Amino acid sequence: MKPINVGLLGIGTVGSGTWEVLRRNADEIQRRAGRAIRISRVADKALARARTIVKGKAKVSADAHEVTRAKDVDIVVELIGGTGVARELVLDAIAHGKHVVTANKALLAHHGNEIFAAAQKKGVMVAFEAAVGGGIPIIKAVREGLSANRIEWIAGIINGTSNFILSEMRDKGLDFGEVLAEAKRLGYAEADPSFDVEGVDAAHKLTILSALAFGIPMQFKKAYTEGITKLTRADITYAEELGYRIKLLGITKINSKGIELRVHPTLVPARRLIANVEGVMNAILVKGDAVGATLYYGAGAGSLPTASAVVADLVDVTRLITADPGHRVPHLAFQPDQLSDIRVLPIGEVETSYYFRLRVLDRPGVLADITRILAQGSISIDAMVQKEPAGEKQVDIVLLTHRALEKNVDAALKKIEKLRTVLGKVTRIRLEELL
Amino acid sequence: MKPINVGLLGIGTVGSGTWEVLRRNADEIQRRAGRAIRISRVADKALARARTIVKGKAKVSADAHEVTRAKDVDIVVELIGGTGVARELVLDAIAHGKHVVTANKALLAHHGNEIFAAAQKKGVMVAFEAAVGGGIPIIKAVREGLSANRIEWIAGIINGTSNFILSEMRDKGLDFGEVLAEAKRLGYAEADPSFDVEGVDAAHKLTILSALAFGIPMQFKKAYTEGITKLTRADITYAEELGYRIKLLGITKINSKGIELRVHPTLVPARRLIANVEGVMNAILVKGDAVGATLYYGAGAGSLPTASAVVADLVDVTRLITADPGHRVPHLAFQPDQLSDIRVLPIGEVETSYYFRLRVLDRPGVLADITRILAQGSISIDAMVQKEPAGEKQVDIVLLTHRALEKNVDAALKKIEKLRTVLGKVTRIRLEELL
Repeated sequence: MKPINVGLLGIGTVGSGTWEVLRRNADEIQRRAGRAIRISRVADKALARARTIVKGKAKVSADAHEVTRAKDVDIVVELIGGTGVARELVLDAIAHGKHVVTANKALLAHHGNEIFAAAQKKGVMVAFEAAVGGGIPIIKAVREGLSANRIEWIAGIINGTSNFILSEMRDKGLDFGEVLAEAKRLGYAEADPSFDVEGVDAAHKLTILSALAFGIPMQFKKAYTEGITKLTRADITYAEELGYRIKLLGITKINSKGIELRVHPTLVPARRLIANVEGVMNAILVKGDAVGATLYYGAGAGSLPTASAVVADLVDVTRLITADPGHRVPHLAFQPDQLSDIRVLPIGEVETSYYFRLRVLDRPGVLADITRILAQGSISIDAMVQKEPAGEKQVDIVLLTHRALEKNVDAALKKIEKLRTVLGKVTRIRLEELL
Repeated sequence: MKPINVGLLGIGTVGSGTWEVLRRNADEIQRRAGRAIRISRVADKALARARTIVKGKAKVSADAHEVTRAKDVDIVVELIGGTGVARELVLDAIAHGKHVVTANKALLAHHGNEIFAAAQKKGVMVAFEAAVGGGIPIIKAVREGLSANRIEWIAGIINGTSNFILSEMRDKGLDFGEVLAEAKRLGYAEADPSFDVEGVDAAHKLTILSALAFGIPMQFKKAYTEGITKLTRADITYAEELGYRIKLLGITKINSKGIELRVHPTLVPARRLIANVEGVMNAILVKGDAVGATLYYGAGAGSLPTASAVVADLVDVTRLITADPGHRVPHLAFQPDQLSDIRVLPIGEVETSYYFRLRVLDRPGVLADITRILAQGSISIDAMVQKEPAGEKQVDIVLLTHRALEKNVDAALKKIEKLRTVLGKVTRIRLEELL
């Protein structure tokens, strides 16, 4: 059979990895796919750099539309990133009957519904294994491997930069700012790290996982997003003493009221496998009603790991390229006319457990006031530790709660912060047992 | 579209789980697959029990051929187990043009080549996600998710019974026999546990993984198999002191000489995620040249988890049932005419690290004799610990080696055991860094 021709948009980190994997594993890939897969066209503004990589073995152009509209291109791989040009080019490729492979989580989280509808209408595939968890085949696991299950929840470490920072803060007893500087030096954090450390990147990925798990459209705007910038060494240490680790988790759950969609630092029991995922690695826990808890671990970013997912998508698309669209796995796991309109819950309606840290005056009756307010808000206490004196007549109190409604917690903390004996804001970190 | 009709062979533990999952998640499954999947026929010798489960909603028969040959059955699910009747029925189903889903690792390890060839000829699919790792979608991960990679090695905890026994021996400081009795009482071990504790079950599964990873035919007879029955509390404790855990691993690797295929107790660094997989859970590490190390974790057995994999296969087969065979994923990951004849290495040609435990007379020169023999065999020592006196003028020595060739180790240990100062046999456990 004649080779599949791929048009590559963007030959930066992941693009050059894709070029490299297709080149060095060409034989292995052809033996699996049944035909050769080759990049025949590349578009990149950095023409000279692109030419150095492809060494005359593909047509290089600065005009991406030459690729999206080329008659001799079967599949367009979008590795430009962002939601502007990338959206326009992906839609253009689809309009010209090309199948699309993309690693662009921001694009899908924001414009996935529009893109999948266009692809559906045109009868082409849009594959996106590389958009979540880098080289970990998590999209395939959720969409196909666990198709027998009602998914109950997903909780994942899906941002390597944040996990690296949290691992280093704990290991070396450093503060957020110190580790961030180190991460930038090592190339684990971008010059502007806000997408990573503020949880936005994780929320993009979680939005995709949630849609696949529960058969709902992409609803990034409804995701609750909280980053790791305010975490202190003290909280990491206190959590540790109580048997927990703090991880930035993306969590999506379904219950009788709706779907939770939230990214935030989370206390996780230290003995859980996912609590022991260190450095830039990613891991995703998926709980299904039949299979129970399953976990998927690997490199969540990087040139070759991400290329591994891009090329796996190319093999899948190649295999089904001449098949009737009915034989393909639906983009969002469920048939497009079978999506559900279950609502995404605002964070106030989420029920979880909590870690609170308060600084109080070391005076009789303080604790009675606090516990009374919590009880009034139906928040029951699971554990309490009074820490060493924090200053003259001041003391830190750490509380763990049982499951409570977030809006009740908001109200209670507001009241507690008004107590004259409570100094400053209460630190609140959510806690999940993940069972 | 009209429903897919499934014929079920055997409605025991996994069969009744499959019935249950298809029933309770019928809506979810139809929304994913695009059509209903229902069990219309069941064959089981225990007629009364089968009828109690299906409650008149499927035809029940004691004659399995009524199912394999029924005109109104699209897919036959084989959950009988074993390599006798199951082989005959699977081949009969294929001969009658049925697609097959099976959880039977023994059948595939022994007769997979014959079965896949028959299926290929007839143009039907044989799906077997449930044969390895229970509900973990590991077959799909290796065969599709990592298709861009040259797989370098796989190392897995793929027998839950053995892992439960090892976890309990370590946690509770018990001996093998004590924990085995407990495992039988809890239903984690069969009355005759030899397939599990002797490594045979793990070797069946490893044979399948090795074929998928390296594109070779099934070669169960060439697998090296060693169980956990001879492990002692002392070895578990000594390993722990040196920073290692002992796990029964299935390991398959490729190198320039050939393919390693071996199941044996293995020392693994305690900080590795896989070293922390406890109880009956399974986990499989897969190392690809592009993706790096990935890990897949979940329930490796049980009614509903295994049914999760069976039903996922049913969804996959349903989706491609009217597709051209060329659109399907090849049974063994590689196109059938593209299998390789790389040889499986005998255990003597395997290179790995080792843990040795010897009891010696506490006398000058003993260690010099031992280290001289090891050096002559090109076996270099990585660490050595002398344990407390084991008796009057006797002492236990524990050695860790760097990588060495197994046949050199055999020869060296033979010489060492002939020393008058060495008492009894040397305990030898292989060690893998898994990096």
